[in-house]
Amino acid sequence: MKYNFSAGPAILPKEVFSEAAQAVTDYDNTGLSLLELSHRGPEFTAILDEAVRLPLELLGLSEDDYQCLFLTGGASSQFFMTAMNLLNENYHGYYIDTGTWSTKAIKEAKLFGKIEVLASSKEDNYKSIPKKYASSKSSGYLHYTSNNTIFGTQYQSLPDHGALDLICDMSSDIFSRPLPGKNYGIIYAGAQKNLGPAGTTLVIIKKSLLKQINSGLTSMLDYKIHAAKNSSFNTPPVFPIYVSLLTMRWIKNNGGVEAMAKRNQQKAEAIYQEIERNNLFDGFAAKEDRSYMNATFTIKQKDLEEQFLEDCANAGVVGIKGHRSVGGFRASIYNAMDIQGINKLVEVMKAFESKHS
Amino acid sequence: MKYNFSAGPAILPKEVFSEAAQAVTDYDNTGLSLLELSHRGPEFTAILDEAVRLPLELLGLSEDDYQCLFLTGGASSQFFMTAMNLLNENYHGYYIDTGTWSTKAIKEAKLFGKIEVLASSKEDNYKSIPKKYASSKSSGYLHYTSNNTIFGTQYQSLPDHGALDLICDMSSDIFSRPLPGKNYGIIYAGAQKNLGPAGTTLVIIKKSLLKQINSGLTSMLDYKIHAAKNSSFNTPPVFPIYVSLLTMRWIKNNGGVEAMAKRNQQKAEAIYQEIERNNLFDGFAAKEDRSYMNATFTIKQKDLEEQFLEDCANAGVVGIKGHRSVGGFRASIYNAMDIQGINKLVEVMKAFESKHS
Repeated sequence: MKYNFSAGPAILPKEVFSEAAQAVTDYDNTGLSLLELSHRGPEFTAILDEAVRLPLELLGLSEDDYQCLFLTGGASSQFFMTAMNLLNENYHGYYIDTGTWSTKAIKEAKLFGKIEVLASSKEDNYKSIPKKYASSKSSGYLHYTSNNTIFGTQYQSLPDHGALDLICDMSSDIFSRPLPGKNYGIIYAGAQKNLGPAGTTLVIIKKSLLKQINSGLTSMLDYKIHAAKNSSFNTPPVFPIYVSLLTMRWIKNNGGVEAMAKRNQQKAEAIYQEIERNNLFDGFAAKEDRSYMNATFTIKQKDLEEQFLEDCANAGVVGIKGHRSVGGFRASIYNAMDIQGINKLVEVMKAFESKHS
Repeated sequence: MKYNFSAGPAILPKEVFSEAAQAVTDYDNTGLSLLELSHRGPEFTAILDEAVRLPLELLGLSEDDYQCLFLTGGASSQFFMTAMNLLNENYHGYYIDTGTWSTKAIKEAKLFGKIEVLASSKEDNYKSIPKKYASSKSSGYLHYTSNNTIFGTQYQSLPDHGALDLICDMSSDIFSRPLPGKNYGIIYAGAQKNLGPAGTTLVIIKKSLLKQINSGLTSMLDYKIHAAKNSSFNTPPVFPIYVSLLTMRWIKNNGGVEAMAKRNQQKAEAIYQEIERNNLFDGFAAKEDRSYMNATFTIKQKDLEEQFLEDCANAGVVGIKGHRSVGGFRASIYNAMDIQGINKLVEVMKAFESKHS
């Protein structure tokens, strides 16, 4: 038995893997693999229609106000597409920098217009989320990353944003909890954490924003075109979208994002309790900002790091090595990780303490 | 038994489907699904390394001269990325328009610099490939589409290109035959015909061109960055790349592109012979330019069209309806379609003739 704590691509529900494998062999008794079905045919059209409806249903957003797109290019492409599509003389971009991903979004957006970084926790090595900044801007968007996978920080409520539309990179915590508010202009998420396998990116865009997209954009980078063509302007990534749909169905059938939030809280608390209790480890992120998706922690005696990783591996606990910017360990505990996995990790931590203290 | 003649996403070898399904369940006895493996881990790194090596091996291109990238966004993104990365004051873009796909490439390229269309077969409704044009250009590229899936035309040799680098959209006939020459600057191909499932795009780029990429591009659209990061600047589409690798291994194990070419020729000739022999049907494309991948044909008595499609469906022959720009029928007979499928289609055509003449 393996317990996969990888940051992404990441664990998905077992049922999703088995349904996905079945579809690769024979999709829904068509006698054909999902991989060879036309993206214009009735089977994939039905998949796509459900896949663009479910995110709104799960997040409690209205179809009158929002539209879902399944694009490619990862969240990395949304770093620039948001700016390229929206920035103009009257609609400005404001950013909060909580590390790596927002830093990249800021870098790419600068190529497409003037933007302003309102706050950054860089000086703190991104252990916390900056909360104090002037946000009384009148027109534009505020871009933020709701959960930082590398440093293990997460917004527990909406950032101060005044009259600005929120653009949120929700790659690593989408569908892990109900939305903490309703002022989103765009929510985007690379699939490969809570949503599906690598290869597609969900973009939820407020319909009113679709009316102010910059003109003259190349077709594949123009939200308007993808929206008008229901994500089928060109051949969409059929399999990643299908697996994303299976995952969303699983979330829906297991109590929706409310139930996910409850379970994720229990899981995160079990790990954080052990990190605090255990004499060998230190939590990395500031307590009030720590993530329910990625628990980051270090080991007091650096020379025990490799041994702990070995003990984890021997217990079937994989993907636990921390990102090089933080070091130590990271337990990514997305929706599909169940409490048994958490218990196993806690067991290994306890046993390691007994052995080394 | 189903015979899938879809234009794309399209048929892949049966072995590829079963290995892909197995990998979704448990990749290579890791106890984990391929979909949950880290793209930085040893398993996917090995997949990617082989996946970027095999295209060169299959096509007889040297690793000293060329590099392969696996990107996203389909061939549609290459329509503009080629121009965006390469066009400058001294390096110009020239195009041959053989319908739909080249027309789109021309449209998107115009946004990034001055380009010139050297020839078009539009007046002919793209039944043929234009061969007469002035090609004595000194610096730049000549962009062409080697096979047009919609009209069923295909280049049988390199277009006249003087001193220009060739940029070839080879989406629908890559690996179907040996390269007819060696003056390629870029070859690109959306996976979903001869290479794999939808969701990744192979870009083979001449290393010398990587030295003249325009500066100031956003990271995700910059060939230099993807090349420097071996297609892992961001999370690559793991599953589509893996299935593409399985398909390339299958090609290699079945005699390479030389054997594919031989088989494809036999298959295409069997269909074209029947189209010519059968009194009910007409071939669409000009004989000397007809495609070995997509055979397009129409029916003399328009009112029999639906009945023929019904007879096909009853015999398990699917995906045979022609594109709306041409009407009639299209048999897409990519590498993975075997001669049994062709025989079945020919059998249905013969039986239909007996019934209706």
